Amino acid sequence: MLNLYHHPFCPFSRCVRIALGEYGLSAEFVEERIWERRREFLIVNPAGTLPVLLDGEGPAICGPRPVLEYLDETRGAEAGARRLLPDTARGRAEVRRLLDWFDIRFHEEVSNYLLTERVYKRFMTPEQGGGAPDSAAIRAARANIRYHLHYIGWLAGRRNWLGGDDLSYADLSAAAHLSSIDYLGEVPWDEFEPAKAWYARVKSRPSFRPLLVDQIAGVAPSRTYVDLDF
Amino acid sequence: MLNLYHHPFCPFSRCVRIALGEYGLSAEFVEERIWERRREFLIVNPAGTLPVLLDGEGPAICGPRPVLEYLDETRGAEAGARRLLPDTARGRAEVRRLLDWFDIRFHEEVSNYLLTERVYKRFMTPEQGGGAPDSAAIRAARANIRYHLHYIGWLAGRRNWLGGDDLSYADLSAAAHLSSIDYLGEVPWDEFEPAKAWYARVKSRPSFRPLLVDQIAGVAPSRTYVDLDF
Repeated sequence: MLNLYHHPFCPFSRCVRIALGEYGLSAEFVEERIWERRREFLIVNPAGTLPVLLDGEGPAICGPRPVLEYLDETRGAEAGARRLLPDTARGRAEVRRLLDWFDIRFHEEVSNYLLTERVYKRFMTPEQGGGAPDSAAIRAARANIRYHLHYIGWLAGRRNWLGGDDLSYADLSAAAHLSSIDYLGEVPWDEFEPAKAWYARVKSRPSFRPLLVDQIAGVAPSRTYVDLDF
Repeated sequence: MLNLYHHPFCPFSRCVRIALGEYGLSAEFVEERIWERRREFLIVNPAGTLPVLLDGEGPAICGPRPVLEYLDETRGAEAGARRLLPDTARGRAEVRRLLDWFDIRFHEEVSNYLLTERVYKRFMTPEQGGGAPDSAAIRAARANIRYHLHYIGWLAGRRNWLGGDDLSYADLSAAAHLSSIDYLGEVPWDEFEPAKAWYARVKSRPSFRPLLVDQIAGVAPSRTYVDLDF
């Protein structure tokens, strides 16, 4: 039995949710608002980060990379051609490089700004950092996203998937971050056709479907969020 | 033949250097000042981060986690009892959790402030972000380090090493970050005896010795930096 502490719009949680779907695994989901710093959650994961995976008895697996590596080690080998990390050490290094690219760089430069300003702040008290959106942060994200979409298109033009021949954690992480902000209508797809074509392929996978029904109270999804032919 | 792009005071590079030492591997070192954003380096690693490992021919392995995982996959299995990740998936998850704790959290809250303000800015032009140290950032780091030293002592009191029974990447990462700022005399060891006792054990390992001869031009090491009986 798997349990996943997550937030519907946390990109790191979304990446793990897609991975679970790709591996045909089901899990019980527990929504966690990390800005509330809930005591019971901090006992499970002192870092207070998402996602956190419980796999039956035993200590929790905490944080995006530990969870993804754990899933690879315990479920990936038996997934055969659907495994989300390549077989070779060099292939895995390239996927991990891109995983860090999206989880660290894209997050810092784009998705964290937009999600904090446009989603999380809605639910935060002033003490937790809530308040009016910072328009300078939103502007920075809207400028920064462009070279990332360019880079995704560049990668997709040279490889079958972003990390190599096969779908991998690199695609899942990139698509997870983009999907969270696509809900907000913050991805200028029409100016970046190669990135759009790659995203359409990820978005059409059955593992992606559960993400497309998530809703934020008080924020309507962008017109094309659920549309597979966006 | 291994080549490592690094900086002598970059904690992520230091962690890999200790790992190389533990595995009995030698490498050619290339010092990189990432704030210069050297074009040839950005071609090797577009993210511009350290460390970067070249293992003979083939693409570079970029970034701390990809390098550490690559070393585990290509050199760890044959290292036997000296392997720096545990054998079990859960054991590995715990080491990776702590690796992220130090590489993300400790870095953001402590070592990045101190290294940026007290080391890197000395070598940066104004355009690169150089200038006088920001005393508020230094004060924040000096406050934040205390709960990290407490946490290290807490872990060390319950386990043989920070990540479990054996020396692991968790110890190497924690010691790498601490060593960089210990050079600056920024670790209040005497108030945190359990953390100090653990650090003394890591510091006395032969793999640690090369770090203790590094020098920063114009900044003398703290009185106890090289002292094994500090």
